[in-house]
Amino acid sequence: MASAVIERSTVEQIVRQVAVEYLRKNQNRNAPVLTVQTSSRHMHVCREDMDILFGPGSELTFDRPLFQEGNFAAKETVTIVGPRNRLISNLRILGPMRKRSQVELAFTDAIMLGINDIPIRLSGDIAGTPGAIIIGPKGVVELKQGVIRAAIHVHMNPGEAAYFGVSRGDRMKLRIGGEAGLTFNNVHVRIDPSSRLNVHMDTDEANACGLHLIKDIELFK
Amino acid sequence: MASAVIERSTVEQIVRQVAVEYLRKNQNRNAPVLTVQTSSRHMHVCREDMDILFGPGSELTFDRPLFQEGNFAAKETVTIVGPRNRLISNLRILGPMRKRSQVELAFTDAIMLGINDIPIRLSGDIAGTPGAIIIGPKGVVELKQGVIRAAIHVHMNPGEAAYFGVSRGDRMKLRIGGEAGLTFNNVHVRIDPSSRLNVHMDTDEANACGLHLIKDIELFK
Repeated sequence: MASAVIERSTVEQIVRQVAVEYLRKNQNRNAPVLTVQTSSRHMHVCREDMDILFGPGSELTFDRPLFQEGNFAAKETVTIVGPRNRLISNLRILGPMRKRSQVELAFTDAIMLGINDIPIRLSGDIAGTPGAIIIGPKGVVELKQGVIRAAIHVHMNPGEAAYFGVSRGDRMKLRIGGEAGLTFNNVHVRIDPSSRLNVHMDTDEANACGLHLIKDIELFK
Repeated sequence: MASAVIERSTVEQIVRQVAVEYLRKNQNRNAPVLTVQTSSRHMHVCREDMDILFGPGSELTFDRPLFQEGNFAAKETVTIVGPRNRLISNLRILGPMRKRSQVELAFTDAIMLGINDIPIRLSGDIAGTPGAIIIGPKGVVELKQGVIRAAIHVHMNPGEAAYFGVSRGDRMKLRIGGEAGLTFNNVHVRIDPSSRLNVHMDTDEANACGLHLIKDIELFK
């Protein structure tokens, strides 16, 4: 290969470095605003399960928007029944529909249902996870798998990823100040052009640090 | 002051340094065994409130021992009523009796009762904290104060404190491994000759890190 040729990947790397330098130097003006939100337990449904739970051809009804563009809390709720016949009612469905149904619980919720070793997974990674019975107004679905505790994660776009110097699949730390101060050491990085910088933790994690009372929050590599 | 005289505090300091050196060098043999335990919500009662709640001259009934010598879970329970008339029943009393009554709740418990800004305090430090109504089988007590979220803390004896190089009132860090890994940054050090090395966290904190599934735990300055 002629040494005068610069490969595309090298060009990309140089551009990325320049962008990062620029963002770092202009940190005060350009530092992305960090928001941290608590995800309560919820369900995502696939088309097939929606047909069974709410009737053939039924659609989710928009209730309120979520932080990430296009996502919303639906008016529809279901009941989930765990392995020991305990149940949680009013489990909210989040839209839009997905390719596969999935239930995201906090640890406390899982224990309440009798799932004592709920796996911690990124959304979508449900192979080998526990199942559950889901009861809707029109029918019942037996999920073979898909019940997870969502790993704490941060959504960001490629520009924000460059600012922090992280790539898809990296883990970052999130320090929460205050008297119950703690640092989450495994915050998974999820990058998408349509994302806005935003950490999602579950209710157990938010309660442990008293999140709603805290202003002193820092995300770092 | 004659320079040949060595003050008592200096002697103590030298002894302490020698002890620490000895302990550090013999770390493998002498490293204290760390246990971490979850404190569920509970109450401590004073003699006066015991008289009202369970009858004059009544005593706590031993149910099971706690990790720290002399402490026990009693058979007696009460009901606590919060500011919005919500209640939690079967609130366990821990013995022995104390000089002042005190209720220790997790954040989740406090929210359930309608106390949305429960202060985080060390046990005993209850000035200016919220009160509650306590209902026992023989009477009702209105606590003017004493409802706290207990700050995460570590009990240790002076030898263990020397091993870690910490003093009363210091704060340490507790790192919990695993997928939901996090580090508690404000673990209060409590030193007493009768103590055994033991971290106490509340149920919210234990649920956030999935404590019961984790073996990889580290306490450090």
